Amino acid sequence: MRSPLEENEYSIVGQSVPRVDAIPKVTGSARYVGDISFPRMLHGKILRSPHPHARIAHIDTTRAEILAGVKAVITGDRDTKGVRYGIFPRTRDEYALAIDRVRYIGDEVAAVAAVDEDTAERALELIEVDYEVLPPVFDPLEAIQEDAPQLHEDIPRNKSVVTALEYGDVQKAFDTSDYVREDHFDTSALTHCLPECYGAVATCDPSGYVDVWVNNQSPFIKQKTLSSTMKIPEHKIRLHRPYLGAAFGSQSEMLKAEFVAAMLSRKTNRPVRVFLSREETNAGSVRQKHAFHMDLKSGTLKDGTIKAMAFHVITDGGAYISIGAITNICGVICLLGMYPRLEAFQYHCDRVCTNKPPKGAMRGNGAQQIQWAVESQIDLIARDLGLDPIEFRIKNAARTGDVNIHKSVITSSAFSETLLAAEKASRWKKKFEKQSPYKGIGVGCGSYFHSFDYGYRTASAAIVKFNEEGRATLFSGNVDNGSGNETMLVSVAAEELGVPFADVRLVNGDTLLTPTDPGSHSMSSTTTSAMAVKSAAADARQQVFEIAAEEMEANIDDLISRDGKIYVTGSPRRGISFKHAIVAGLMKGRIVVGRGNYQPHLDPVNWYAGQITGQMVGAYSYATTIAEVEIDPDTGVIEVPSLTVAIDCGKPLNPQIVHGSVQGSTLYCLGQALYEEASFNNGQMMNPTYLDYSLPSSMEMPEIQSLIVEAEHADGPFGAKGLDAPVNAVNAAIANAVEDAVGVRIKELPITPEKVLKAFEEKKHLKSDAEVR
Amino acid sequence: MRSPLEENEYSIVGQSVPRVDAIPKVTGSARYVGDISFPRMLHGKILRSPHPHARIAHIDTTRAEILAGVKAVITGDRDTKGVRYGIFPRTRDEYALAIDRVRYIGDEVAAVAAVDEDTAERALELIEVDYEVLPPVFDPLEAIQEDAPQLHEDIPRNKSVVTALEYGDVQKAFDTSDYVREDHFDTSALTHCLPECYGAVATCDPSGYVDVWVNNQSPFIKQKTLSSTMKIPEHKIRLHRPYLGAAFGSQSEMLKAEFVAAMLSRKTNRPVRVFLSREETNAGSVRQKHAFHMDLKSGTLKDGTIKAMAFHVITDGGAYISIGAITNICGVICLLGMYPRLEAFQYHCDRVCTNKPPKGAMRGNGAQQIQWAVESQIDLIARDLGLDPIEFRIKNAARTGDVNIHKSVITSSAFSETLLAAEKASRWKKKFEKQSPYKGIGVGCGSYFHSFDYGYRTASAAIVKFNEEGRATLFSGNVDNGSGNETMLVSVAAEELGVPFADVRLVNGDTLLTPTDPGSHSMSSTTTSAMAVKSAAADARQQVFEIAAEEMEANIDDLISRDGKIYVTGSPRRGISFKHAIVAGLMKGRIVVGRGNYQPHLDPVNWYAGQITGQMVGAYSYATTIAEVEIDPDTGVIEVPSLTVAIDCGKPLNPQIVHGSVQGSTLYCLGQALYEEASFNNGQMMNPTYLDYSLPSSMEMPEIQSLIVEAEHADGPFGAKGLDAPVNAVNAAIANAVEDAVGVRIKELPITPEKVLKAFEEKKHLKSDAEVR
Repeated sequence: MRSPLEENEYSIVGQSVPRVDAIPKVTGSARYVGDISFPRMLHGKILRSPHPHARIAHIDTTRAEILAGVKAVITGDRDTKGVRYGIFPRTRDEYALAIDRVRYIGDEVAAVAAVDEDTAERALELIEVDYEVLPPVFDPLEAIQEDAPQLHEDIPRNKSVVTALEYGDVQKAFDTSDYVREDHFDTSALTHCLPECYGAVATCDPSGYVDVWVNNQSPFIKQKTLSSTMKIPEHKIRLHRPYLGAAFGSQSEMLKAEFVAAMLSRKTNRPVRVFLSREETNAGSVRQKHAFHMDLKSGTLKDGTIKAMAFHVITDGGAYISIGAITNICGVICLLGMYPRLEAFQYHCDRVCTNKPPKGAMRGNGAQQIQWAVESQIDLIARDLGLDPIEFRIKNAARTGDVNIHKSVITSSAFSETLLAAEKASRWKKKFEKQSPYKGIGVGCGSYFHSFDYGYRTASAAIVKFNEEGRATLFSGNVDNGSGNETMLVSVAAEELGVPFADVRLVNGDTLLTPTDPGSHSMSSTTTSAMAVKSAAADARQQVFEIAAEEMEANIDDLISRDGKIYVTGSPRRGISFKHAIVAGLMKGRIVVGRGNYQPHLDPVNWYAGQITGQMVGAYSYATTIAEVEIDPDTGVIEVPSLTVAIDCGKPLNPQIVHGSVQGSTLYCLGQALYEEASFNNGQMMNPTYLDYSLPSSMEMPEIQSLIVEAEHADGPFGAKGLDAPVNAVNAAIANAVEDAVGVRIKELPITPEKVLKAFEEKKHLKSDAEVR
Repeated sequence: MRSPLEENEYSIVGQSVPRVDAIPKVTGSARYVGDISFPRMLHGKILRSPHPHARIAHIDTTRAEILAGVKAVITGDRDTKGVRYGIFPRTRDEYALAIDRVRYIGDEVAAVAAVDEDTAERALELIEVDYEVLPPVFDPLEAIQEDAPQLHEDIPRNKSVVTALEYGDVQKAFDTSDYVREDHFDTSALTHCLPECYGAVATCDPSGYVDVWVNNQSPFIKQKTLSSTMKIPEHKIRLHRPYLGAAFGSQSEMLKAEFVAAMLSRKTNRPVRVFLSREETNAGSVRQKHAFHMDLKSGTLKDGTIKAMAFHVITDGGAYISIGAITNICGVICLLGMYPRLEAFQYHCDRVCTNKPPKGAMRGNGAQQIQWAVESQIDLIARDLGLDPIEFRIKNAARTGDVNIHKSVITSSAFSETLLAAEKASRWKKKFEKQSPYKGIGVGCGSYFHSFDYGYRTASAAIVKFNEEGRATLFSGNVDNGSGNETMLVSVAAEELGVPFADVRLVNGDTLLTPTDPGSHSMSSTTTSAMAVKSAAADARQQVFEIAAEEMEANIDDLISRDGKIYVTGSPRRGISFKHAIVAGLMKGRIVVGRGNYQPHLDPVNWYAGQITGQMVGAYSYATTIAEVEIDPDTGVIEVPSLTVAIDCGKPLNPQIVHGSVQGSTLYCLGQALYEEASFNNGQMMNPTYLDYSLPSSMEMPEIQSLIVEAEHADGPFGAKGLDAPVNAVNAAIANAVEDAVGVRIKELPITPEKVLKAFEEKKHLKSDAEVR
């Protein structure tokens, strides 16, 4: 049997095969939630709280119910089972519809199903809600005060998640450092700017089977939440996989549109479509990104060796807990995968509830914010110590085999190689601190983790069945959130089977049809789901080989397969097709069905123990980004003409998809670094539309050099790890480049022209003050 | 582990659990082909030949194409690949649309897709076809003459299938018989009176994936034919399982509606619906039933032992071969499973092409006709010899362990027990030849075979996966043609797993999603498909038990499961739930996916060798029917006030479904025995609607005593065999009862009042002649 690491033997892995979703997406045949339609379908609309904080005294739906064309009106009190839900058992703080209290402007209060959207909208206006307004709190620093309004009865001082970690002797590590530096960094709340608005369609049949089409990254999680909250067995709820108009982490949790669609469908026995407006989608119905407020203290030796880091973090979580417990910890996991050889590490993070839209997972969830701070401060320390920031990072960078401070083994790292590759490609040494005024270059690094125990499902399974042509159907619970997962799963199956890419057809992300899967998040699709697929394919191939060995009168151990043909090693001209073997098997009553499981080798995280120890993740990937900026001295406007990204994603399964992901993450970060911020006035989001919310366009897209540092990860499919490390690297690279260009340091995202000009002013004052002294 | 034969241990098997399709069918939520609809769907209509026999000289579609609303016009010559198809390689005699010649009134010539049905109809009128009319032949006896018009170039004398079998020394067996009798029996052509009209919906996406929803009993056969005829790989064609408004064998073969829908969809890139009218459905677009013309000669001893039978049969096959090769042989298979101890047997059957609608499979395909003749003649012989017809049959009836004349082992038979049970329940001995004039009683028997090698797919496979509630999804390629297969598959899986019936959800009959399966025909669903399901469930249960054994620290061999709970034998109070075990497995990365194959133990039939030998079938089931009739002496009208049916179907998995099937087959036979006949005038069917075609209604339904003789079949799921033996028994029972009532023998179906009155007349003449002499 061939070794998975003999690269030259691969037929598909390492090739840029066209994505399986390319033709449907380009031709418009891909069906998104917005395209799902059924005869007699009703349209649902949701009534939302106009108050940031209030008690619901009474809801009168009488007038709405009698409006012609209205088929159902539901409220939390009357129509839900009163079951609270949330990601973790201890964090269940939401109802499908608010029952007693609303906590942000937009909180879901009631819903209507009607024959068309206009009628549903009019019915919403006829619902009368008596609110007793409560004092709100918007600032997390105020919210943790003793006398602040408390959002949830069981969350004192609004600290919805408190994470406190400490490894090593922190005091001693700082005491023995040559240099200690403290900085404060901030990030802003952001909103997911999903290309499609959020929505769901539900049907309910007389046997009580509920089918739901909803944007989703993890159908099994949504199924479970719907089941427990609506008190319907999971096997009567089928989550379907529509195409996703992006997800970025927002579509793992249950959101209200699917609850409302399912409840209204159950009540009316008709299909119900709930499709949110752009304002609803952006203003909180889809979780927003946590703003982080970080005090970071680092101690190093003179040579740049980092000895200790200590974080004190306050994050603004908005009205509900959502995925907050994970957000609190992601940055630590990534950081300690990048710089594992710290002597000591301390981390305290209070996630605070405020009367603003709830915050949840958004690409780089928690990690991006922490790495923004770390990669900014490292640059400052390197400057202070007179060290080259790239050499500084290489000194501390994770190496394969390192064991980090919380006892995770770094199973594979080409982090330093990404630094060297980016340095060379960007001609860093010719540019850093050597360019004309207002032009700068900066480096920033990021890591990501792959496979992670976020509390329940870490295992995935897959099934491979053959048709009589020798072609395969692959069943996987994983979904594609746009990142190319489907193409990856098909590639891995086809490579492992030894059949052409086009000969594998995927059925995925459907809770009725596929085995369970963690979902397309926590960056585990490659290192978990694809491993299960590989295992199922190997099992199916073995069954095919058993038949082929009989047909060919050959020893099964001598067989190999490639391009749909099975032959004895070294004799590619002789051999039989998969079709031949499959039909021969069928005639003997042997029908090939392969199955495979995979569970990453992890130590479980105890989410409530206040400490994490052991193998937290399956693998770390790494990226180095080097940004070049040009700043207009008069306006403060920053342009990023070019960016160099070097990535260690393990073996690149499909280089085109890797480069595409790099481009996507770069543009995504550019927005956060320079433009984006969800702004609020008394809890009201002021910029929920694209007219107000500033996003980079293709005009702002830098020229990107994307470099793949080929590494191998023994526990990944054909050596692969995962893709998204650049997303944690870009922001600091830009801030560091700004300082290289104009000598000012911005510690708050986004780095707007106003902040740059203000920094110019402050710098002038400092200079003037110095001149005066 | 429990033995499958310890009946008292069953939770589900033997219980009349409600059918899984009961609620959808009763509430109307079941989606039939006619309910399938898509946005932008076009409507297809088919242009048919008005001539029974003609050459197509030219087709001009220009005027149809320019009609507003017409999106595509297709013809065989221009738009098909010119590939002939048929069930067997040597019988491929049809094109998707006629290319050069039409052979019956209704033969498909061209088709149109338009925005609505009316426009499509109008477009048909605008297609100009130049026909060169050819001489037709309608009578099979004429068609086999040297100078008859020949329908197919490669079928001399129109003998489309010739079957000639001979076992033993026929001449000697007749010579040594005490009594030899010869009779001629006829049956009529019949049409499937499907409750729903025939139709198909097809979609085609830009990647070339074709999805087809069509009435069907065997999605894998239809998929294969579509693939080879349209030159599209099978894995790009997905056959879906809509609910079936009955099938009766008509929906295994590819028919034209699905070809036309798929071709029009591919041409227009839009969904296309082709839904036939009642006239089209009944007049030949769905295959009709073969009329059989049979000379039967039997030789017996004085005591009633049958020594030899010799058949000479001509069947009217209509324009194309269809499933004819199977029709020719089914009767022999059943007959020699009923009366296996013949010394000699001879069978010659010419299936003849005529310019009438093609004949294919229809419930009791071929077997019903042969057994009508045999069971009629046995009654005549018993009378001639002065023997009781029930005792006569018991003397010859198959017994478990018999080896029949073609070397098939009778693996399980309670045939005699069905005779005894029906005799007792009907109070036969008090009634036979003892009732008042015009009241009669008659007995008829039938057998059916279960699992049969009809040329390719005899194996089935199944998959069982669990969700996190400990509930299962079962994948089977089998479909339910109304006979309760889905309920059976779920019952078998649930029983084998040891979980409640409601905990198994079925995904079936979808070529993309399920493993291959022979289909719901040849009575193999129970003895093949359900066995694969049982095997997959056993495999899944074993995986669950492995986890449970660890959880419970028990020996896996001591575990049993029942009602969703796993416990150590004898300690039902202790134990864990399936959910517990499944979640425990998931936490360890073990996700349960069971798989199973089953292939019946058969010797292959060589369809072209002219001889069949060996184990032809997996099992035989048996039925005895005793009919009581009352005849109006003035009108000849026959009423059947009561019918007793005793069935040996092996272990009855669901008694209610068994009784339902018995009732269905009885009413079905009543139509054939007394009312139904497809009548033709110059090849034109004269009674294609329910106004003309005489069907029994609920008013004619006899009171039915349905008795289950519990037998066991070791190779069946929990001892089951199959259900449809009564369908081969009823017709002769009625004819025999008629003779008991009024002393006339009708040897031609249907037994109409006209035939009865005519027989009265003839009898009077005979009596008068006798009186004269």
